[in-house]
Amino acid sequence: MNVTFLQDLLSRITDRTRRGSSTPSGDRQHTPSKPSLAQLTAACATLMQSGGEASRILVAQQALDHYAGLDAAERRTFFTLLAERYAADPGAVHAAYADYRKHENNASLQRLFTACEPRRQDLLRRLNLCPGGTHELVKMRADLLDMLKEAPELAPLDADFAHLFASWFNRGFLMLESIDWNTRAAVLEKIIHYEAVHEIQDWSDLRRRLDPEDRRCYAFFHPAIGDEPLIFVEVALCRGIPDNIQTLLAGGDEVAPRYADTAVFYSISNCQRGLKGISFGNFLIKQVVQELKRELPNLTQFVTLSPVPGFAAWLAQQRETEHYRLSAPAANALKTAEWQQDTPARQALEPEIRALAARYLLEAKHTSGLPLDPVARFHLGNGASLHRLNWPGDTSSKGVRQAHALMVNYLYELDRIEQNHEAFSREGSVICASDVRRQASRADALRYTSVDA
Amino acid sequence: MNVTFLQDLLSRITDRTRRGSSTPSGDRQHTPSKPSLAQLTAACATLMQSGGEASRILVAQQALDHYAGLDAAERRTFFTLLAERYAADPGAVHAAYADYRKHENNASLQRLFTACEPRRQDLLRRLNLCPGGTHELVKMRADLLDMLKEAPELAPLDADFAHLFASWFNRGFLMLESIDWNTRAAVLEKIIHYEAVHEIQDWSDLRRRLDPEDRRCYAFFHPAIGDEPLIFVEVALCRGIPDNIQTLLAGGDEVAPRYADTAVFYSISNCQRGLKGISFGNFLIKQVVQELKRELPNLTQFVTLSPVPGFAAWLAQQRETEHYRLSAPAANALKTAEWQQDTPARQALEPEIRALAARYLLEAKHTSGLPLDPVARFHLGNGASLHRLNWPGDTSSKGVRQAHALMVNYLYELDRIEQNHEAFSREGSVICASDVRRQASRADALRYTSVDA
Amino acid sequence: MNVTFLQDLLSRITDRTRRGSSTPSGDRQHTPSKPSLAQLTAACATLMQSGGEASRILVAQQALDHYAGLDAAERRTFFTLLAERYAADPGAVHAAYADYRKHENNASLQRLFTACEPRRQDLLRRLNLCPGGTHELVKMRADLLDMLKEAPELAPLDADFAHLFASWFNRGFLMLESIDWNTRAAVLEKIIHYEAVHEIQDWSDLRRRLDPEDRRCYAFFHPAIGDEPLIFVEVALCRGIPDNIQTLLAGGDEVAPRYADTAVFYSISNCQRGLKGISFGNFLIKQVVQELKRELPNLTQFVTLSPVPGFAAWLAQQRETEHYRLSAPAANALKTAEWQQDTPARQALEPEIRALAARYLLEAKHTSGLPLDPVARFHLGNGASLHRLNWPGDTSSKGVRQAHALMVNYLYELDRIEQNHEAFSREGSVICASDVRRQASRADALRYTSVDA
Amino acid sequence: MNVTFLQDLLSRITDRTRRGSSTPSGDRQHTPSKPSLAQLTAACATLMQSGGEASRILVAQQALDHYAGLDAAERRTFFTLLAERYAADPGAVHAAYADYRKHENNASLQRLFTACEPRRQDLLRRLNLCPGGTHELVKMRADLLDMLKEAPELAPLDADFAHLFASWFNRGFLMLESIDWNTRAAVLEKIIHYEAVHEIQDWSDLRRRLDPEDRRCYAFFHPAIGDEPLIFVEVALCRGIPDNIQTLLAGGDEVAPRYADTAVFYSISNCQRGLKGISFGNFLIKQVVQELKRELPNLTQFVTLSPVPGFAAWLAQQRETEHYRLSAPAANALKTAEWQQDTPARQALEPEIRALAARYLLEAKHTSGLPLDPVARFHLGNGASLHRLNWPGDTSSKGVRQAHALMVNYLYELDRIEQNHEAFSREGSVICASDVRRQASRADALRYTSVDA
Repeated sequence: MNVTFLQDLLSRITDRTRRGSSTPSGDRQHTPSKPSLAQLTAACATLMQSGGEASRILVAQQALDHYAGLDAAERRTFFTLLAERYAADPGAVHAAYADYRKHENNASLQRLFTACEPRRQDLLRRLNLCPGGTHELVKMRADLLDMLKEAPELAPLDADFAHLFASWFNRGFLMLESIDWNTRAAVLEKIIHYEAVHEIQDWSDLRRRLDPEDRRCYAFFHPAIGDEPLIFVEVALCRGIPDNIQTLLAGGDEVAPRYADTAVFYSISNCQRGLKGISFGNFLIKQVVQELKRELPNLTQFVTLSPVPGFAAWLAQQRETEHYRLSAPAANALKTAEWQQDTPARQALEPEIRALAARYLLEAKHTSGLPLDPVARFHLGNGASLHRLNWPGDTSSKGVRQAHALMVNYLYELDRIEQNHEAFSREGSVICASDVRRQASRADALRYTSVDA
Repeated sequence: MNVTFLQDLLSRITDRTRRGSSTPSGDRQHTPSKPSLAQLTAACATLMQSGGEASRILVAQQALDHYAGLDAAERRTFFTLLAERYAADPGAVHAAYADYRKHENNASLQRLFTACEPRRQDLLRRLNLCPGGTHELVKMRADLLDMLKEAPELAPLDADFAHLFASWFNRGFLMLESIDWNTRAAVLEKIIHYEAVHEIQDWSDLRRRLDPEDRRCYAFFHPAIGDEPLIFVEVALCRGIPDNIQTLLAGGDEVAPRYADTAVFYSISNCQRGLKGISFGNFLIKQVVQELKRELPNLTQFVTLSPVPGFAAWLAQQRETEHYRLSAPAANALKTAEWQQDTPARQALEPEIRALAARYLLEAKHTSGLPLDPVARFHLGNGASLHRLNWPGDTSSKGVRQAHALMVNYLYELDRIEQNHEAFSREGSVICASDVRRQASRADALRYTSVDA
Repeated sequence: MNVTFLQDLLSRITDRTRRGSSTPSGDRQHTPSKPSLAQLTAACATLMQSGGEASRILVAQQALDHYAGLDAAERRTFFTLLAERYAADPGAVHAAYADYRKHENNASLQRLFTACEPRRQDLLRRLNLCPGGTHELVKMRADLLDMLKEAPELAPLDADFAHLFASWFNRGFLMLESIDWNTRAAVLEKIIHYEAVHEIQDWSDLRRRLDPEDRRCYAFFHPAIGDEPLIFVEVALCRGIPDNIQTLLAGGDEVAPRYADTAVFYSISNCQRGLKGISFGNFLIKQVVQELKRELPNLTQFVTLSPVPGFAAWLAQQRETEHYRLSAPAANALKTAEWQQDTPARQALEPEIRALAARYLLEAKHTSGLPLDPVARFHLGNGASLHRLNWPGDTSSKGVRQAHALMVNYLYELDRIEQNHEAFSREGSVICASDVRRQASRADALRYTSVDA
Repeated sequence: MNVTFLQDLLSRITDRTRRGSSTPSGDRQHTPSKPSLAQLTAACATLMQSGGEASRILVAQQALDHYAGLDAAERRTFFTLLAERYAADPGAVHAAYADYRKHENNASLQRLFTACEPRRQDLLRRLNLCPGGTHELVKMRADLLDMLKEAPELAPLDADFAHLFASWFNRGFLMLESIDWNTRAAVLEKIIHYEAVHEIQDWSDLRRRLDPEDRRCYAFFHPAIGDEPLIFVEVALCRGIPDNIQTLLAGGDEVAPRYADTAVFYSISNCQRGLKGISFGNFLIKQVVQELKRELPNLTQFVTLSPVPGFAAWLAQQRETEHYRLSAPAANALKTAEWQQDTPARQALEPEIRALAARYLLEAKHTSGLPLDPVARFHLGNGASLHRLNWPGDTSSKGVRQAHALMVNYLYELDRIEQNHEAFSREGSVICASDVRRQASRADALRYTSVDA
């Protein structure tokens, strides 16, 4: 490696860091052209050599630059190469096992563990040496996840990423930051980009969500990936528990924070696809509850206003497979797009939607034994309880399509989180308000069997 | 776990974080009294249970609090327990190996790797969930290192710590900070505490090292362990390469930074014993060179003013084992404590000290084939060259005792670091200035054999 | 004043400060309704009382809230009241003068000065006690300036504002900040709002101006008025001196900063109308030149790309009053809107536009003896020289309307600023490049007289 | 002014600012040697010229550097020169007055005011242009204050400083900062230096005052004078109102902040002698009360633990002038240095000390009609009430010397501050606890007259 290149590269890194920008466009022209799979492969080989410590940061940088230049097919080839050539050495594994079998103690186990560790993990740790490397690796895993369906043989490689990320993104390393209109624009544009639940249209819309006194937003950041949020939650401070997301998003009728009694978590978005399976939401909500209680002792209720993304699909399937049905008026109402404007249609629909939704949330189960609805699974798993059904709660086209406009509130009660969580995770019990349970019982009348009887 | 305790604990954590203090003295009284090994053991067991995610942060906090209350004997018992009860399940290892033997592919390797991972590693990751946990674990490993000599069977446990720390303290996660008189006192008192090469007497002494325009100090920090530096280097800006540490420490004759041509690294201190073997110094020096070059383009030389800690011991041994000797006048001079004030004595000593020190640095080797002197090993391993011997360079009692007052300069030339490092790590070549080599050649005359001949 | 109100008010202030927002909307409802001129007048009277120091912050806050609730007519009434009732006491002035006449020393002068100080100044200082007061007073003066034409009798009141503001906004109190894509959104939206030279369309346009590596933006802030910039300058880093603002604004062909040789100041905007006459631009440009030189020693030229806002009007007047004329082809070309697309038209226009523009810039004078063009007056007054005419340099409708698409570069040479400034301010000499002078001389041929001759 | 000097100077300024240090020692050698009164005088003259705006920052910097090089005699000469040569122009004053007399309106008053303004004020504003100028001017006034007794003719010059400083240090410009162990050392060393009430011995002592959870410290800063605090207050959080300063300073028995009910202001120090008469303490205490109430709603009492600096001197004078006397046993007790260790002596002294101290605080008046004791004047003037006498409250040698070991608590009740202040400032009423009043009444028995009777 020659020296001019070294200096050039380091100053590029420095420049990039200084600007805080993830797209160092202008300078690209000065990097060696034609990054290619061959160069990446060579860089990885160099990186694994025992000597050469001094230059590892630079080689890691090069390797990641080369990777960024690959197309999808090349990336798949690269992953296959990692899977094939960067596994463990079978000879070493067999020898270490023979030794372990003989002695079976901590020292021999340690050697066996070391022998089994796929060399990929060490490669990934070395790629992580350069500034910005962590985020590049997170994006690399996102690429890999996209291919897993077609290339299930890459799953062990994904397990290596997951193993490392679980260490790197340990809760102890995350930083909670409050996001508001004084946050730097480079972060705010990412909030706009990553909002996954209720889309943010533009900067004016963003301002409406962040700037009013009765709104809050919190995100987890990781020190090594700078401006990129990992997950964020949007909060509204209210008097009483809100039942409609459009009203809440419209805002306008601001509440002075010290007169609010309820904090509503109305949107939680994961930002990094490459961190799939490394869960933060649980910690985020609980830490935000703590922060808010400290700042505003007047807050007495912490709830969500949540979508029910699987309800419409479940209901369709129930009707198709003749488990549950809708009464004729309700079925007719649902057929028209205009039931929202049509009072009799709404009146026909409401009790049946509520009853079946309650039934769905309480009883429809995943193969794991946990609730079928992913949002329910998340909040109930955190120790929240199912507090209230709101209908119509989300009349956006997405809300109508996913859940016939239903929304629900999950309630976080700090002094019940533990026992709720225990009950849920041990026995699968869904803790819910008695009113929800009552509505669920009314679904019996909508069983096909009950009709037949 | 009851709720009041939960809230109490969380507010304690919050308070502690807010104050940035690692010793939350006043509040201790409110934590449950009598932390004990039994409670720690129980907390670890709870932490490993599959359910109960919601409470893990708290249990981790409890466990670390209990650990902090143990005495040395109890800690050893705890480590032994970790070694014995938190290894892998042998049955699972054997089964996974049988499967691997049959299929020998990435998936079976992945399962074997997972089966071999000592459960301790997962336990340590879970202990790391709570705020401040990382630093507690680093201190825990320091305790363990203290016991390794007497309890070598704990070495695999140490390997688990080292494995995790290598991930957690990856270069990509470290933050370089400039330390000066505007740094917060909570950090500065740690600089005083951790300075290991040339002791800092008090705050006035510290100010002399940080505040003058021609002094710099840089440290690596890790985001999860807050105010605790990992390693720091003290730098003086000079005209020309200094040859005496007392003169340099005394200061007084400040150079305006933009008129300096040389940056001198005169003290590098590792701060966390528990991070032994996780090396940062290499990266630190190189990043500081980059920082300084960017700020002060007038700097053209980057050198150290370094001790030679093994020289006096090596020389004594050479004389005892009759490999090298000193001439009679030199030997006599060395016997008197006052050779520093005695010009003839100094003149008798100088050529022989220089010759033998050059020989020591160039040829005395460790069993690894690398230089015997640890400081030489560090800088030469980083790609620096041995530039100059300075005598007398350190007339402090420590300097006289360790190295008969010798100091050396190692030279960091950015455009030679790579090749120096390669030559050193592949062939063990010590790159040095021709003058040093010349001095070394004069040691031939001081061989016993040469005398005998 | 009752206590609940006091606490309410203080917590409002605290909330407002915390949110960093200037529009504390939600809470307004809790302030006493019906602010009125009468209440404002009463608050001012209270504020001037000798006792009651403890409550002054609150009364000042009230007074400014009341002022904010006034309509334009009421504001004029209020200003008139200030002019009439908050002047000095004539009796005290006469007495102090009599004493001064007798003794004519510093002590008697001091007393006379104190007697002459309009009580308004003290009132304004007391209004400034409350958080946010400074910005409210700056806006109050903007209101006053709007009325001065119709109400010239209020000019002495304006002089009081100007007197205080010259102290409060002393250069020593201003803070230079670099504005980029990492700046908080609350400031960036103000940059969009205040850009007065080349309008910023939206956040994407703003990002194009701030985020690329070859763009910079700097603003002066005053510590007491928070997020509100006083003045800002936009800078492009280029190779060579640019001659066209549309090309420059489009960007796209980024230059790596360390390869740039020229910094171009292409837009300077004053943000606070109420600070009219308190000049910062001079200091801003010079400090930015220093900052850039320090960061990028490769920069060798500092120029502007500036509009010539008075040229078209001057030329029209010259033609009307038969001083200067255009040749027939040029005059015809100018009549068509499409001369930009019409090569022969452009060729006919170019030499005459250049000649007359050079003449305008060099010789057209204000009654003060300084250049008629306000932008020329500003930069030449700062010690810059007139470096080059660019045509067509600004083909926006504003550029065509104001200056027939002409732009110019003013050159800031640090080692000539002093003497340029001296020559300009003492003798009115316009320092310019010889090429510009040559072009000006060609305008002789376009004099009416020369034609007649 | 030549250019190299200009660049040199500006880079010096930049360096100095960067290092945050007020003593740019190393570089001094490069400034022109022999600063002198003549050069200062010349620089002031240059600064007042109408042209030359561009170079004013530099000339101001030079002038202040020259001033810093003057000895005391030269400084007095300089002040005299300011007084004599930088007054107003008498001709202009007479003319403006004649005009005012004729028209007597706002415009003519404005002109008269302008004519009367001593040119010194403008000079001081121009000296304030350079970075760091504000603090230099504050120190300049401190020099002037030292001379006023001997040179009363300089009082009008002091009035000019005071007039400007009242504008520059307006409450609206001050920033409240919390000082703790995370504050930068450059500020902390100033806290050690400026503590005027209970001396801070060294950094360990400082840490004891700042780092424990139950201690707080707050200071006002001005943005233009950086690290220099203007005033600070030290606070202890307690259960109940403390009665002894030695116990409080010793600390040790920390209270968790959320269990404290009382905040004690036990030391308030003004830092800048040059800001005499510009009062901040009033605002500081009230803002700190607000901050603490917001952070710790559990606090219900805000008190001081204050010295009574004038008591011993007053008592001595009372006894000498035969107004009040001590009983024989008390008088004897006071004569021995050991009354503190001598129980009967203490018992003899206590009732008489308390009675006379209460009388002193309630009735001894300054010529202004306000309390004679300066600390009492300050807190009562802020609207606090005299809450309790503590004896012995301060057994340090200073405490015994000043006040025979007496300390008092003043109580700040937010909902009574206003009316207390009004009563105090209008009628001179000292609001005090009934117990204090009762003790005062017992002093009647110690009147000489009562004895004689």
